[in-house]
Amino acid sequence: MSNLEKSAKNGVNVDALLAARAALTQAPEAAQFKWRATSQWLNGTHSRTTISDFHGLGTEQKHRQNFQFDTDHPEIFASEDNGPTPVEFVLVGLAGCLSAGIAAVAQNRNIQLRSVKATLEAGMDIQGILGIDEKVRNGFDGIRVHYDIDADATPEQIAALVAQSQKRSAVFDVLTNPTDVHVTVSKAK
Amino acid sequence: MSNLEKSAKNGVNVDALLAARAALTQAPEAAQFKWRATSQWLNGTHSRTTISDFHGLGTEQKHRQNFQFDTDHPEIFASEDNGPTPVEFVLVGLAGCLSAGIAAVAQNRNIQLRSVKATLEAGMDIQGILGIDEKVRNGFDGIRVHYDIDADATPEQIAALVAQSQKRSAVFDVLTNPTDVHVTVSKAK
Repeated sequence: MSNLEKSAKNGVNVDALLAARAALTQAPEAAQFKWRATSQWLNGTHSRTTISDFHGLGTEQKHRQNFQFDTDHPEIFASEDNGPTPVEFVLVGLAGCLSAGIAAVAQNRNIQLRSVKATLEAGMDIQGILGIDEKVRNGFDGIRVHYDIDADATPEQIAALVAQSQKRSAVFDVLTNPTDVHVTVSKAK
Repeated sequence: MSNLEKSAKNGVNVDALLAARAALTQAPEAAQFKWRATSQWLNGTHSRTTISDFHGLGTEQKHRQNFQFDTDHPEIFASEDNGPTPVEFVLVGLAGCLSAGIAAVAQNRNIQLRSVKATLEAGMDIQGILGIDEKVRNGFDGIRVHYDIDADATPEQIAALVAQSQKRSAVFDVLTNPTDVHVTVSKAK
């Protein structure tokens, strides 16, 4: 079906994204982004992290508002459960990234989405973080994501949306491939 | 200095954690955790993810409350900036994980923390996610974390706290090593 016969409305401005792609192809230095967070320890395992500014398109950028998030450990770890665990925030990022990609790809393919629901589950053997067994990794032993999607499309077209989103997802890449994390420390005066 | 001379109060119940380690060494099946999230697409690149229950210590567990988080893309990507980008949530998880570890290790070493602040910056060349250059990865090209810590300890002792936290951090492991992410899809009826 052509765009004349039907126009999907998924709320993604694909024309703007295609224009950005064309512009950045001519100016690759503008494609260099820096995402940032600042964090403050409160007490015990409880910290608060702020998301405010970032760098991109060659200049400093600000979110419309500052966002703050508390992380903590649950009561079964003798903590106060003042927020999700840090690892659960990683799942928030994965869900949000894949779903945004699904909407963008659906818009580009003129497929109307009606609902997109994801359930995520990540296994972890906490013998790793507790230092019981050096052979057990600290992180997830795997992540399963299941999408339930209601859309004006065949099951095969819906599966292809998700596959294309995975192929271009930043968080999917961050999880499935190694990233260098460089940590430095100074003693506050 | 001995525990009799000085007792650090960082709000981490290290005795409970050491008891848990001893208990789980005898019952490794209780150390198998499952962390979960459910997510719903709202519009465009805007989704809402809920953190509620998890599995651990051999049974189903619930957080004291449900936590909900909105993810979105910023206005410069022609989106509405209703929440941080998904990749910024990954930084929230990394900051929270390393800081919780620093507090736990400091408590175990009887070092009083006064303040722990982290600044994080992750580079990303968005030519990857835009599909401009297949050689550019979608995710971060690296993450820099800097800790400023005020504590009753030498700079070397403070640096050792951070190093030990990295060694046992779940999110640090998730980022620096690959994790299998298995995605399935069904068409909603």
